[in-house]
Amino acid sequence: MPGPVITLLTDFGTADGYVGEMKGVLASLAPESPIVDVSHDIPPQDIARARLSVSRYWRRFPRSTVHVVVVDPGVGTARAALAVASEGRFLVGPDNGVLSPALASPGAVVVALDVPGGASPTFHGRDVFAPAAARLARGEPIEILGARHRSSIVMRTPVPVRSDGGVVTGEVIAIDRFGNAITNIEATAAETLVVAGWVVPVVRTFADVEVGRSCALVGSAGLVEVAVRDGNAAKALGISVGTPVEVRDGA
Amino acid sequence: MPGPVITLLTDFGTADGYVGEMKGVLASLAPESPIVDVSHDIPPQDIARARLSVSRYWRRFPRSTVHVVVVDPGVGTARAALAVASEGRFLVGPDNGVLSPALASPGAVVVALDVPGGASPTFHGRDVFAPAAARLARGEPIEILGARHRSSIVMRTPVPVRSDGGVVTGEVIAIDRFGNAITNIEATAAETLVVAGWVVPVVRTFADVEVGRSCALVGSAGLVEVAVRDGNAAKALGISVGTPVEVRDGA
Amino acid sequence: MPGPVITLLTDFGTADGYVGEMKGVLASLAPESPIVDVSHDIPPQDIARARLSVSRYWRRFPRSTVHVVVVDPGVGTARAALAVASEGRFLVGPDNGVLSPALASPGAVVVALDVPGGASPTFHGRDVFAPAAARLARGEPIEILGARHRSSIVMRTPVPVRSDGGVVTGEVIAIDRFGNAITNIEATAAETLVVAGWVVPVVRTFADVEVGRSCALVGSAGLVEVAVRDGNAAKALGISVGTPVEVRDGA
Repeated sequence: MPGPVITLLTDFGTADGYVGEMKGVLASLAPESPIVDVSHDIPPQDIARARLSVSRYWRRFPRSTVHVVVVDPGVGTARAALAVASEGRFLVGPDNGVLSPALASPGAVVVALDVPGGASPTFHGRDVFAPAAARLARGEPIEILGARHRSSIVMRTPVPVRSDGGVVTGEVIAIDRFGNAITNIEATAAETLVVAGWVVPVVRTFADVEVGRSCALVGSAGLVEVAVRDGNAAKALGISVGTPVEVRDGA
Repeated sequence: MPGPVITLLTDFGTADGYVGEMKGVLASLAPESPIVDVSHDIPPQDIARARLSVSRYWRRFPRSTVHVVVVDPGVGTARAALAVASEGRFLVGPDNGVLSPALASPGAVVVALDVPGGASPTFHGRDVFAPAAARLARGEPIEILGARHRSSIVMRTPVPVRSDGGVVTGEVIAIDRFGNAITNIEATAAETLVVAGWVVPVVRTFADVEVGRSCALVGSAGLVEVAVRDGNAAKALGISVGTPVEVRDGA
Repeated sequence: MPGPVITLLTDFGTADGYVGEMKGVLASLAPESPIVDVSHDIPPQDIARARLSVSRYWRRFPRSTVHVVVVDPGVGTARAALAVASEGRFLVGPDNGVLSPALASPGAVVVALDVPGGASPTFHGRDVFAPAAARLARGEPIEILGARHRSSIVMRTPVPVRSDGGVVTGEVIAIDRFGNAITNIEATAAETLVVAGWVVPVVRTFADVEVGRSCALVGSAGLVEVAVRDGNAAKALGISVGTPVEVRDGA
C-alpha cells in the first residue's frame, strides 16, 4: 500500500514552476505518498471559489489524506498558517476561509504552523505548507506542528431568506465551467424558480427539458442549480455570482 | 508493483472540484492504483475531440489499465453507461461515441453499467464511472458490472473520397494546440496538397521547409497534417475542422 | 518505496492526447515510477519560459528523479536530443536551451540520445524522450543511451549592468500568473526601484504596503520582483518581459 494521498489545490497555474517546486518538496519529504492534483486553475486569489471546491472533495478522499490548499493573497502578512485534523483527514492552508468546510466540522483540531526562519515571505506553499503536509503524511501528530489555534476564519455560504409568504430568496454562489449556476438553496418542492426575470421549471435532470431550454434541478452537491440543456445557463440567462433566486416554498 | 493505472479524460476543467470528487472516489475504492490525468480541458461537450484523444492514447498504456472518459452531455438521459474490455485494457464512459476506438476493436466486450439508486442524475462521473473503474482496477470481472450491451454507438472518422481521376478529397478532423490541421488522409505519395486554396508541399518533417512556410506531412498518429514551421497553420491558412483537403493520388 | 519520480513539462496542452501518449509509454516502460505533472501549459514553443520553470523545480526533487522537458520547436531538425545527469538528477529534452539550469552545473554528464528508426519526426516526446526517461528511471546508466555530447546549448539569463555611478540596470525576465514582474537582479540594498517610469519602494513582503500599492521585493527564487499587493503589477504598471529596471546600488 502506498502512503497517504496528498492533494493540491492552488491558484498558481502551472507554467511558472511554483507547483513544480511544491511537488519537489513533497516528493523529497514524503516519497511514499502519491501526489494528486485537484486544481491549479482557481482564479487568482479567489478564496470563495477555492472554499466551494474544497467543500466538494475533501471528504471523498480516504482517511489520512492530506489536502494542501494554497490560495493565499495574504501570504507574508500576520494571517496564520494552519494545519487541521477533521473527520480523519488533514488539511493545510492559510487562515483565510479556504479550509472552512473542515474547520466547521465538530471536533476539528487546528494548529498554527510554525514558520521556519528561512521561509520566503511570499511562498508559504513551498516553505511552510508542503513541508507540513509531508510531515502529516508521514504520520507525525498534528500537535507537534504548532500551537493550538482557536479562532480560525470560517467563511459560510449565505443562507437563503424565507418570507412570511413562503417565498425563499437565495442567490447564485458559483458558475461552473458548463455555465450552470449553483445556488445556496438546498432543495425545493416548488414547480418553478425565478432568476434574472426568467421563470424556469424545476425538474429532476437535464433530460426532462428540450435541448436549449432552461431548467432548475438539484445538482450533485445537493444544491439547486439553474442549467440550460446542452447550453450555458449563465450566458443564456444573464446570471452571475450573487444573482438573486426565488422559489415559492411548497408551492 | 502498484495496481493498474486509472486514467482520466473529462471536459470538467478542474476549478469546480468535480474532478477532485472523482479522484477522491478512486483513491478510496482503489487505493493501490495510480491516478493519471490525461486531460480535463476537452472543450465542454466536445465528444469528437475526446474520441480523437482517446484514439491516440488508449493502447499506449499497459494491459489492465482502466481509462475513465467522461464527456457526457447526455448524463441523466436514457443513454447507457458503459464498461468496455478491449485488447487487455478497460474503458468506462457514456455510450455517445467517446469510447469508439476501443469499441471498434474485434473482440471488445461491452456491458451497460448498473446505475446505483443514489447516483446523482447529473454526475455519473463520480457516482457511476469512478466506482466502476475502481472495481475493474481491483480485478473484478467486467461481466459482474452490468448486462452485456450489444449496440453501442461507434463514431467513425469520415473516410476520404477518391474520384476516378485519382483525386483524394479528405477533410480536417482536428486542429491541435499548435495550429496543426490534422486530416483524415492516412498517407500520400503526392508532392503537393491543396487546402483552403493553398498549395502546400508534402514533406517528411517541418525542418524540410523554411521557418514561416507551410507544409504537409504524415504526423505522429499516421495521418497527413498541414503545418506551418514555427507557426500556426490554422490561423495562417484559414483552416478549421471540416475544411476540405485534396491530394492527387500517386501524382 | 516506489521507483524514481518522472516529471513532465511540455507546451502540449492536454486536450490533443499527446501528453496521454507520453504517459502511456512511461506507464508501460517504467511502471513503478510515479508520473508527476509539472506543467503542460508552457506557451507554445516558449523555450525561455520553460527554462525559467525548470530552474525553479529541477533540484527540489529527490535524487534519481527524471525530468522530461519537451518544448521542442526544432523537432525533426538536426538539433540533438539530450539526456543529462546533473547533481544526482536526470533530465531529457531537446538541445535548445530548456535544460540549461542542469547543463550549467559543474560535472553534468550529457549524451545525445539515439533516435530509433521508427520514431515520428514530429513527436520525439513520445518516441525518444519518454523511452529514454523510462530507461533512466529503471536505473540504466546514462552512458548506454547515447554518445557523449560536448557542446550543448546553454541559455543564460542576461546579467544586470552596473554603471560607474552605482546604478544597476536589469530587466524583467518573466511575468507570472499573478502579474508579478520577475527581474534578473538578485538582491538590492536600495530603498526604491525604477520601472516603466514608476518609482516603487523596496520592501520585505507584500504586506508592507497598502492593498493596491506597488512594491519591489526579493521573491521566492531569490530575484527582485515588482508586485502590486492583491493586484496585477504587469497590467497596473505597464510592464512586460524585457522592460528595463533600475536600482541604485547601495543607495
